[in-house]
Amino acid sequence: MSTWINNSWYVAGWDSEIDQAPVARTICGVPMMFYRRLDRSVVAMRDACPHRLLPLSMGLREGDSIRCRYHGLKIGSDGVAEEMPLKTDAVNKRICTETFAVAEKHRFVWVWIGEKEKADPALIPDLWPCSREDWTFDGGYYHIKCDYRLMIDNLMDLTHETYVHAGSIGQPEIMEAPLESSVDGNNVYLSRWMPGIDAPPFWRGALKKEGLVDRWQICRFLAPSAVMIDVGVAPVGAGATIENHDQGVRGMVVDFMTPETENTHHYFWGMARNFDIEDKGFTARFKRQQGGVFAEDKEILEAQQAAIIANPDLRLNAYNIDQGGVRARQVINRLIREGTAMEQEAKA
Amino acid sequence: MSTWINNSWYVAGWDSEIDQAPVARTICGVPMMFYRRLDRSVVAMRDACPHRLLPLSMGLREGDSIRCRYHGLKIGSDGVAEEMPLKTDAVNKRICTETFAVAEKHRFVWVWIGEKEKADPALIPDLWPCSREDWTFDGGYYHIKCDYRLMIDNLMDLTHETYVHAGSIGQPEIMEAPLESSVDGNNVYLSRWMPGIDAPPFWRGALKKEGLVDRWQICRFLAPSAVMIDVGVAPVGAGATIENHDQGVRGMVVDFMTPETENTHHYFWGMARNFDIEDKGFTARFKRQQGGVFAEDKEILEAQQAAIIANPDLRLNAYNIDQGGVRARQVINRLIREGTAMEQEAKA
Amino acid sequence: MSTWINNSWYVAGWDSEIDQAPVARTICGVPMMFYRRLDRSVVAMRDACPHRLLPLSMGLREGDSIRCRYHGLKIGSDGVAEEMPLKTDAVNKRICTETFAVAEKHRFVWVWIGEKEKADPALIPDLWPCSREDWTFDGGYYHIKCDYRLMIDNLMDLTHETYVHAGSIGQPEIMEAPLESSVDGNNVYLSRWMPGIDAPPFWRGALKKEGLVDRWQICRFLAPSAVMIDVGVAPVGAGATIENHDQGVRGMVVDFMTPETENTHHYFWGMARNFDIEDKGFTARFKRQQGGVFAEDKEILEAQQAAIIANPDLRLNAYNIDQGGVRARQVINRLIREGTAMEQEAKA
Repeated sequence: MSTWINNSWYVAGWDSEIDQAPVARTICGVPMMFYRRLDRSVVAMRDACPHRLLPLSMGLREGDSIRCRYHGLKIGSDGVAEEMPLKTDAVNKRICTETFAVAEKHRFVWVWIGEKEKADPALIPDLWPCSREDWTFDGGYYHIKCDYRLMIDNLMDLTHETYVHAGSIGQPEIMEAPLESSVDGNNVYLSRWMPGIDAPPFWRGALKKEGLVDRWQICRFLAPSAVMIDVGVAPVGAGATIENHDQGVRGMVVDFMTPETENTHHYFWGMARNFDIEDKGFTARFKRQQGGVFAEDKEILEAQQAAIIANPDLRLNAYNIDQGGVRARQVINRLIREGTAMEQEAKA
Repeated sequence: MSTWINNSWYVAGWDSEIDQAPVARTICGVPMMFYRRLDRSVVAMRDACPHRLLPLSMGLREGDSIRCRYHGLKIGSDGVAEEMPLKTDAVNKRICTETFAVAEKHRFVWVWIGEKEKADPALIPDLWPCSREDWTFDGGYYHIKCDYRLMIDNLMDLTHETYVHAGSIGQPEIMEAPLESSVDGNNVYLSRWMPGIDAPPFWRGALKKEGLVDRWQICRFLAPSAVMIDVGVAPVGAGATIENHDQGVRGMVVDFMTPETENTHHYFWGMARNFDIEDKGFTARFKRQQGGVFAEDKEILEAQQAAIIANPDLRLNAYNIDQGGVRARQVINRLIREGTAMEQEAKA
Repeated sequence: MSTWINNSWYVAGWDSEIDQAPVARTICGVPMMFYRRLDRSVVAMRDACPHRLLPLSMGLREGDSIRCRYHGLKIGSDGVAEEMPLKTDAVNKRICTETFAVAEKHRFVWVWIGEKEKADPALIPDLWPCSREDWTFDGGYYHIKCDYRLMIDNLMDLTHETYVHAGSIGQPEIMEAPLESSVDGNNVYLSRWMPGIDAPPFWRGALKKEGLVDRWQICRFLAPSAVMIDVGVAPVGAGATIENHDQGVRGMVVDFMTPETENTHHYFWGMARNFDIEDKGFTARFKRQQGGVFAEDKEILEAQQAAIIANPDLRLNAYNIDQGGVRARQVINRLIREGTAMEQEAKA
């Protein structure tokens, strides 16, 4: 049984990462390569020539097709052979490479892992802040040497900010505020409401006002592997509630964890916001700062993965603060079981 | 079942590589070491002291013997102990290290893998252009991280020149000429005859004449693991045929692939020629250019090996152009089966 | 069955290596971390937070406790939780990390591998020269990529000095002197007496006298993994015997090999001496020279380990000179069997 979910959309890359030249990336254990056709639609193929398995990502583009750099087998963007290595040979149309269903949405390129005919773009997790016109969104990519679920645990529990990010975004009030969590289908919510506190420097600067604020952190896990964290502050008395809080400044940290192998993953991170949306300098400064914050997480998570391997007799334990991660993993485990059942059914 | 052939000669090194100082090289999975006696005959031994297994290649030469650098056990060039670590101890002549049958021929040192008593130098593949007086021969050594059979596939199909070597020796006519292949015992032939074409720069310079030429490429696989490629051009009308073509300039690319492990091999390459045989500058220039050509092959072959490992559900496929490699592998597979049967018989 | 001995003391570090900041070190396959309390007593714990397994050695000291750097679980120096990540949560005292019995003796920190209630400091090997007031002792630490028993073999046979250390401490007379060996419980003795010889330069300088000397080398293996080598010279006629030899200058090379994994170990080395004990320059010069000698051993031992792995069909053989190592391994094997039996009994 794999650690990822069959019949799901996973992020393959930022829309800005995939262009005309092929990009190689292993997704859920499968070597894939991605490129755009001349009309900019995205192609996803197994990264192995059907002839002698050389990665097609080493190949040469010809129009929308790709020509293998070893013997020159030419493959169309539908994965089907268009020209044999000996040009005089008749093309055998059964020669083809596996292609994958792809979609572009919310600034990401998505790839469907599972039965191709079930790939429905409506099933893409609703990362709405990434594509709303009155919000702005930007972010980055990190390769992390740990099971993607350790990153979900990390994001579904902001307690760690106090220690891991003591020098950057940590704040003692985070540890003292009560936690609320709930499950709704394949989504998990975890919220913390901090009323009438002093805003930390980042939010004070965003709000551009003196005075006490209400602060919130609402983590939302969306299967198969997204976490959106709704963060912000509003002046006390402005009427912000846990359900409705557009009275102040609001950001949405958007994270997607795509498994590469069982112990490594691709981490796509971004920040959407509804304030200063034309201020590109703010965006650039924020991305640079966030790079430092993630370097702290990466160090911790990779050390945790190494410790899990080095201590095979010990297991992860969960306390109250882990309720968000625990519930996200329950959803993931249920979907893995269902996906495995579907897969076996499909094969039967 | 191994990927190499029992009871066969494999190249251990160039005659110029093996000298008085021991050279360590793993051949067909067995750590070996090679050196020359004072009379220049070659010794091949298991590279492990029979006492505590320290590589004997780290040892010290004393006359024709080798003394282990750990405790000083002295081993004669016949592999038998000559002096104990405590010089006062009686020498136990049953203390010995495995030795291997060796031979020198065609500028290479050969080692016999299999039952020593069957080692017959007459079974060494006939790489005649390497040692003919009216030809000259020189080449090099490369360590390649792939199954040796991928290199045989590569050499038995010159189609790949068009793409892999687009910038050096490729020529479109190669792709258009018809292929002929045949098997003769443990040899496989693959030939391409290109009549009345314009000579590529290398051959034009070798021929030193204007005018159209007939060009040929004749790949010959010789078990267990040699490929000789007969290449050259002759002026149109000079009478050259596929069987007989000494009317122009002729070269013989000689390749020997010795398995190191299942996924790595030692690649010995050379070029013999029957023209300008006294021109050492030509030889040196050719070796330097060929280094660049092989770097291109090495990149492709090592990427192919990595892709084979990364895509365990896919297998290599063969088209028309692969007939040479397919037939060479059929010979190899038959000899592996026969060699394994012989080995089991010998043990029974 | 492990390669180390259950219910034994192993050296975890020099007394000078372990201080207030946690030190991570894997001992007998178990990731551990060590630090000193404010009263300087030593703590040894499993190097994994009971919460999410992050190494506690990455944590923050608070008084005698350690706070995990991921979520802030605070662990007392007894291994028991003192504060939950959410400070408002009640502390569950069943949350704890494994602790290990430790002791300080003979300048080393020792850790008990096995059933904690059997940890008796009286069982620590008697490395008396390390802590005698009329002797001085200093040394170093090396990480060696080989089975710890290969180092014991090495130390229980000084023949190798002739070849491995040809340029430093080797002397032909060592090879010619007869060996005596005996076993006494869990100790093994191996002695060599060289009467009336010319002192080598090191010992000549130590003795500060002309004239022939009696020289001795007495190797003593002490289970589970110590070797002490009693070395020195006395003027001929001073009355030195193999049993009693304080008439000249005497040193004790003290070695402890602690298994890290099956194929790597921690090597603690020191030299105790009863002469020039106030001469710190002598000590410093000796340590520097010894570094060069050990680099020679490390090269040999790691090559030997690699050869053992590369030649799985060959096994180590033992001659007369190996009697010390053979007998030490017999003691080790017996204790491994007894320890395994004890362990099984304890579990039953």
